[in-house]
Amino acid sequence: MTGVAGLIAHKQRGGRHGPEEIAFLVEGYLRGTVPDYQMAAWLMAVYFRGLDAEETWALTRVLVQSGEVLNLDAVPGIKVDKHSTGGVGDKTTLVVAPLAAALGLKMVKLAGRSLGHTGGTLDKLEAIPGLRVELSREEIIAQAARTGVVVAGHTAELVPADRKLYALRDVTSTTDCLPLIAASIMSKKIAGGAQVIVLDVKVGEGGFLPGLEEARRLAQTMVELGRRAERPTVAVLSRMDQPLGRAVGNALEVREAAAVLQGGGPPDVRELSLALTAQLLLLAGQVRTAEEGRALAERALAEGRAWEKFRELVAAQGGRVEALEPGGLAEARYQVPVRALRGGYVRRVAARPIGETARALGAGRQVLGQPVDPAVGITVEAKVGDRVGEGEVLARLHAQDRGLAESLARRLAGAWEIGEEPPKEEPLVYETRP
Amino acid sequence: MTGVAGLIAHKQRGGRHGPEEIAFLVEGYLRGTVPDYQMAAWLMAVYFRGLDAEETWALTRVLVQSGEVLNLDAVPGIKVDKHSTGGVGDKTTLVVAPLAAALGLKMVKLAGRSLGHTGGTLDKLEAIPGLRVELSREEIIAQAARTGVVVAGHTAELVPADRKLYALRDVTSTTDCLPLIAASIMSKKIAGGAQVIVLDVKVGEGGFLPGLEEARRLAQTMVELGRRAERPTVAVLSRMDQPLGRAVGNALEVREAAAVLQGGGPPDVRELSLALTAQLLLLAGQVRTAEEGRALAERALAEGRAWEKFRELVAAQGGRVEALEPGGLAEARYQVPVRALRGGYVRRVAARPIGETARALGAGRQVLGQPVDPAVGITVEAKVGDRVGEGEVLARLHAQDRGLAESLARRLAGAWEIGEEPPKEEPLVYETRP
Repeated sequence: MTGVAGLIAHKQRGGRHGPEEIAFLVEGYLRGTVPDYQMAAWLMAVYFRGLDAEETWALTRVLVQSGEVLNLDAVPGIKVDKHSTGGVGDKTTLVVAPLAAALGLKMVKLAGRSLGHTGGTLDKLEAIPGLRVELSREEIIAQAARTGVVVAGHTAELVPADRKLYALRDVTSTTDCLPLIAASIMSKKIAGGAQVIVLDVKVGEGGFLPGLEEARRLAQTMVELGRRAERPTVAVLSRMDQPLGRAVGNALEVREAAAVLQGGGPPDVRELSLALTAQLLLLAGQVRTAEEGRALAERALAEGRAWEKFRELVAAQGGRVEALEPGGLAEARYQVPVRALRGGYVRRVAARPIGETARALGAGRQVLGQPVDPAVGITVEAKVGDRVGEGEVLARLHAQDRGLAESLARRLAGAWEIGEEPPKEEPLVYETRP
Repeated sequence: MTGVAGLIAHKQRGGRHGPEEIAFLVEGYLRGTVPDYQMAAWLMAVYFRGLDAEETWALTRVLVQSGEVLNLDAVPGIKVDKHSTGGVGDKTTLVVAPLAAALGLKMVKLAGRSLGHTGGTLDKLEAIPGLRVELSREEIIAQAARTGVVVAGHTAELVPADRKLYALRDVTSTTDCLPLIAASIMSKKIAGGAQVIVLDVKVGEGGFLPGLEEARRLAQTMVELGRRAERPTVAVLSRMDQPLGRAVGNALEVREAAAVLQGGGPPDVRELSLALTAQLLLLAGQVRTAEEGRALAERALAEGRAWEKFRELVAAQGGRVEALEPGGLAEARYQVPVRALRGGYVRRVAARPIGETARALGAGRQVLGQPVDPAVGITVEAKVGDRVGEGEVLARLHAQDRGLAESLARRLAGAWEIGEEPPKEEPLVYETRP
């Protein structure tokens, strides 16, 4: 067999591709000379056979080279980036970006929208009236130089091949493939122009890769891609076996992030944000140990500098800063409680059904391009380790449709696993690599 | 995941499909509601995960039901069919079809064109001037009723889903997948209207499934599909580790088949044709043992009845019967010898490079729809077990372009494996199932 079919057959039989073969496939796909059905067959063969380190690096490079790389030379200082593999209630970007900038790092964060059962940073920020996330390259660079922090959508010029490939993976059941995930994430980070990168890889059923072993392999693969690209990268493996914090939903999460930025908020959101910021400072050479970085970050929160930087970010992107005051963001018409089916200790709070329920309420989308409702979502009142009585409120659904919320609330109660014994304590951050 | 992507994911994770799921996919693909990239991803998942007996049967049924089934009620007698999985120099259809008809069976053989390194019955028959193979349904039925034998191309009305699916498999490296092969072959046989079916499954590197174990599984799968469709089916496993007979190429193979029909010809072509015909007679209930069937078939060859039936077939399809006399078919301009690189016993004659060389000479096609040259091909002079001296002629290339033939001839010499010891004798027919 020759041509594209020959390359598919080669991977199908467990062969390795040279970099020029991967470039031929991906560039051809972007240009349209490799048709989508051949790319789909190749992706499925890759799902079963994998890509080794060299192949994954070749794929990452060709994705980066398919578009332009954001040139941040005009931004003085050390440019850093942070990425999460996605979890339920994960609003750490809203904390880490201004916090890192308050500590002198330059954070140009190109973020995504809600996907499946997890939320998206852009949708969350858009809960702030007036705030724009679709910025041009020139706006991004100017704002980064001026304020040190930008959170925006990917511009059309960056990694077009990744965008086209991702759309195909989404409809051919090939998203859930480690080397493809690693190359997709890292190509976007590299094209985003950062000098150092901190990755938050979620472990647990609320993330995309439930197992610790798989999460480790993904982390290692991405760290290795960062090394090859000369962008020092560190991965933090963090627990996602219950929602992070208490808020799930766009405006609700902005409010919770604001609380953390003002020195309060739920301990897990605060903890993870501090850990990620400490790694950024360490990688950027600003501190000698993570502990030292953490101390600097704690002080920036305590002194209100991170909160001030967040308000600056909101204003710079056209958002109404007054909306950050209590009552300033959209609120849903109804709050419908989820009640405990029995009494005891909360042993687990299944994050995925909570994410799915928030999506069903309108916080996420069923199909691409759908608008989201900033007001709706869920506030979790009982978390792992809490003791609850039968009938006690576990969470509240913030909804615009009472009937829908009541039916969802009844079904959601099963997400709380309640037992006689308290659960054993587990760390929020499993480990940091390397 | 829902819809088509959910079905892909289900197979990808090793799940089973119900018949309605397979119908949804294949009918949707034929109608265009399932896009080719999703069908390609599903086919690749099937390549890795397989289809079990129920799924393969469901696929076969939906392929049959995608078009019409040839109704042969107007043809009196027992309608039989014969199919080969494809080999180099396999002209047994040209022998078996008239031979079976001479013995009173009705053979409506819907055949194919050359594919890859193997020839096609339709291309071979078209080497006879005037002969038409593209017959309408009405012509096929009328000729079968009148003469008892037809060899024609598939009409557009039969198994359209198989045609569309095959074209996609061809470009996505998913042809080489046992349940897909079995469903494709058997759906065509069932739609062809025969009551009993004899399959010739080739074993050895000249076929499509080299290993005996794989050939056995394919045979068993197809026999089982025949049983479920209430079309009693038998599979003969025959050796394809050297070309069958001595002739490879369209007119050359017609000449060789004619020799066998007149009681002569190479022993292996004669032997396999007799074995297949004996199985047809047995399945049709015309004899009590295969030996009895074989004796009847030998007599029909010896008495010239099979040859007479072949001439009748040729005439019925518009072919010039005079062209079957010596010198009546196209002959190539040049004959270029392939010479032995050393002396000794021929231990193996690699069929695949011989098929590829015949194709390169113009006997087959590189792309669909290309015309073939009836005159060109290869005559094999040294077969397995023969003793040859260094420089002796192993084969002759029949070519229109001397330069091309000389370069191909030099490369082809390596297809003959020559050693000190004679090879051990192996049967032409390994076994017959069930």
